[in-house]
Amino acid sequence: MTRSRVTSHDVARAAGVSRTTVSIVLNRSNSAVIGEDTRKRVEAVAADLGYRPNSAARMLKSGVTETVGLVVTESRSLSVDGYIPLLFNGVGSVLRRKGYHLLLETLSRTRGKNPYTDLVESRRIDGLLLLSPRKDDANLIELIESDFPIVLLGSIGHPREISVDTPSTEGLRDAVAHVVALGHRRIGSIPFSPPGFSAADMRLSELRSFLADDGIALDDTAIVSGDFSAESGFKATVALMAARPDITAIFAGNDTIALGVIGALASLGLSVPRNVSVVGFDDLPFAGYVAPPLTTVRVDGMHQGQCAAEALILRLKGKPVPEPRQKFSSVFIPRDSTASVR
Amino acid sequence: MTRSRVTSHDVARAAGVSRTTVSIVLNRSNSAVIGEDTRKRVEAVAADLGYRPNSAARMLKSGVTETVGLVVTESRSLSVDGYIPLLFNGVGSVLRRKGYHLLLETLSRTRGKNPYTDLVESRRIDGLLLLSPRKDDANLIELIESDFPIVLLGSIGHPREISVDTPSTEGLRDAVAHVVALGHRRIGSIPFSPPGFSAADMRLSELRSFLADDGIALDDTAIVSGDFSAESGFKATVALMAARPDITAIFAGNDTIALGVIGALASLGLSVPRNVSVVGFDDLPFAGYVAPPLTTVRVDGMHQGQCAAEALILRLKGKPVPEPRQKFSSVFIPRDSTASVR
Repeated sequence: MTRSRVTSHDVARAAGVSRTTVSIVLNRSNSAVIGEDTRKRVEAVAADLGYRPNSAARMLKSGVTETVGLVVTESRSLSVDGYIPLLFNGVGSVLRRKGYHLLLETLSRTRGKNPYTDLVESRRIDGLLLLSPRKDDANLIELIESDFPIVLLGSIGHPREISVDTPSTEGLRDAVAHVVALGHRRIGSIPFSPPGFSAADMRLSELRSFLADDGIALDDTAIVSGDFSAESGFKATVALMAARPDITAIFAGNDTIALGVIGALASLGLSVPRNVSVVGFDDLPFAGYVAPPLTTVRVDGMHQGQCAAEALILRLKGKPVPEPRQKFSSVFIPRDSTASVR
Repeated sequence: MTRSRVTSHDVARAAGVSRTTVSIVLNRSNSAVIGEDTRKRVEAVAADLGYRPNSAARMLKSGVTETVGLVVTESRSLSVDGYIPLLFNGVGSVLRRKGYHLLLETLSRTRGKNPYTDLVESRRIDGLLLLSPRKDDANLIELIESDFPIVLLGSIGHPREISVDTPSTEGLRDAVAHVVALGHRRIGSIPFSPPGFSAADMRLSELRSFLADDGIALDDTAIVSGDFSAESGFKATVALMAARPDITAIFAGNDTIALGVIGALASLGLSVPRNVSVVGFDDLPFAGYVAPPLTTVRVDGMHQGQCAAEALILRLKGKPVPEPRQKFSSVFIPRDSTASVR
């Protein structure tokens, strides 16, 4: 790799145009003033010479960084939540295709500070994708109202948000109907996070309400929170079954937790689904291939990531986002971790 | 969020210093020329006023982007390989603490092009972390020899590389000894990727050699490649057991594949470890909490990521890297997915 770089002077000389023309063409700014022939010649010469504009200089001039930040609000979930890699993959595939870069950020909530300020005001990024937004996040609401380009993976129900949400409602309702139809009445729940995380709270309240529709109470003794991981699912299940040995079916907050639930039940001498039925959530790539294959609720993380990235790019280009608040239903997937109550 | 930004003029005025002084202090460039008192006053005023230097301008001036690229060579592994999130987490925790940002990149290998050129020459990043480097990657060797700051997660054995490697040798040797001591002689292998991926090839050749030391042949009929995922482990196992129903122990290329191996064996009416023993790899966070808890080989991805990020930051600051080629041994972890042959 040689240190002597091709400059825009070299390109200008070889293409027989001014350096300003080179800059306008290659920085994609105000390019309407340049004729098609000239543009093509400059681009061809630049490619021939292997010229690459310095992106810091280009950023400064155009105010565009071609970089999008993906913000994960719960950094502890990064290493164990199997849903996040699917989102990454979906987001990344679209950004790559469109020529954007992906800056990975976690939110540090320092006392009294607005955690978005650094991300936004450093001008290091053009726009943000935010995973797991919270309704009670006043700084986020302020950011949305400032018209900064941000797309939520999830929803806080703000009238001006752009969001791609995957509500659990439909899949969960069908999962409850399935479990109840199998005869289960003493049902436990292991949410994927302790209270305070919007999506987990919402899902728990939906679960409670669907069960109530069937005359089944989900009382507090039947709920032990997990924390994204299989380990948390294992420990919560040990605690849950100690408090409520009568339970015959468990709704796990995600599929990884479901693995730990099944592991804990096995350690207690209980087999799935013979003794206890288990329902996962997300339909992670492994869900259909473990023993037993998991009954779960499918949420398409790859697709959610793609749609969010596409909406953000439209927004960055100043184009209208046809459907600012997209919602994709979750789908119930029955497999072999649920069976009739004995 | 207000659009009127605090400028370095405002900071200079309020601190009673020149704008150049503000710039030197806040851009951290050549700061030895500024007295300690002045520096502290400027920093305090900047914090009070909420001043943030425009990072594009700062990058241009200092040539420093404070951004590190993490390059994943196999983008298909992103959504299913549970080791990558651990690396992310380790890398991210160090970069955050040191004030660096993380740009996530996948390598697009376009015909005839050097895939690193865009990353490096765009000057969008100060340095690179490269996951799963390949020995036959001539462009990578060129990059290492150009003295561009790059740290390998893995090793290609280049004398000038900076790398953090986690060779499988020790853990795998102990795993083989354990399985052989349990009486297994007809042993299968499901590498985590098809041939051509250095780490998978290396691990397979080590496995073959350790088994040979015990007089056990690992012939081609006993090897079916996986592709990172549980699904691939499931399918490979179905094929393997059809070809070699005599097999009593399987070495899975990673723990996620091991889940699929156990799932496939269950679907064939074979229980783990009663009928077949299974050894995973990586000791992913779920490994000890599934049914059965996985016997595996621990590689500490979080630690590997942290050490790589620390080495890169030393390199970026022009400081010596005390140990340019770090190696962390893998450790055998016996659990319940292996048992005596019947």
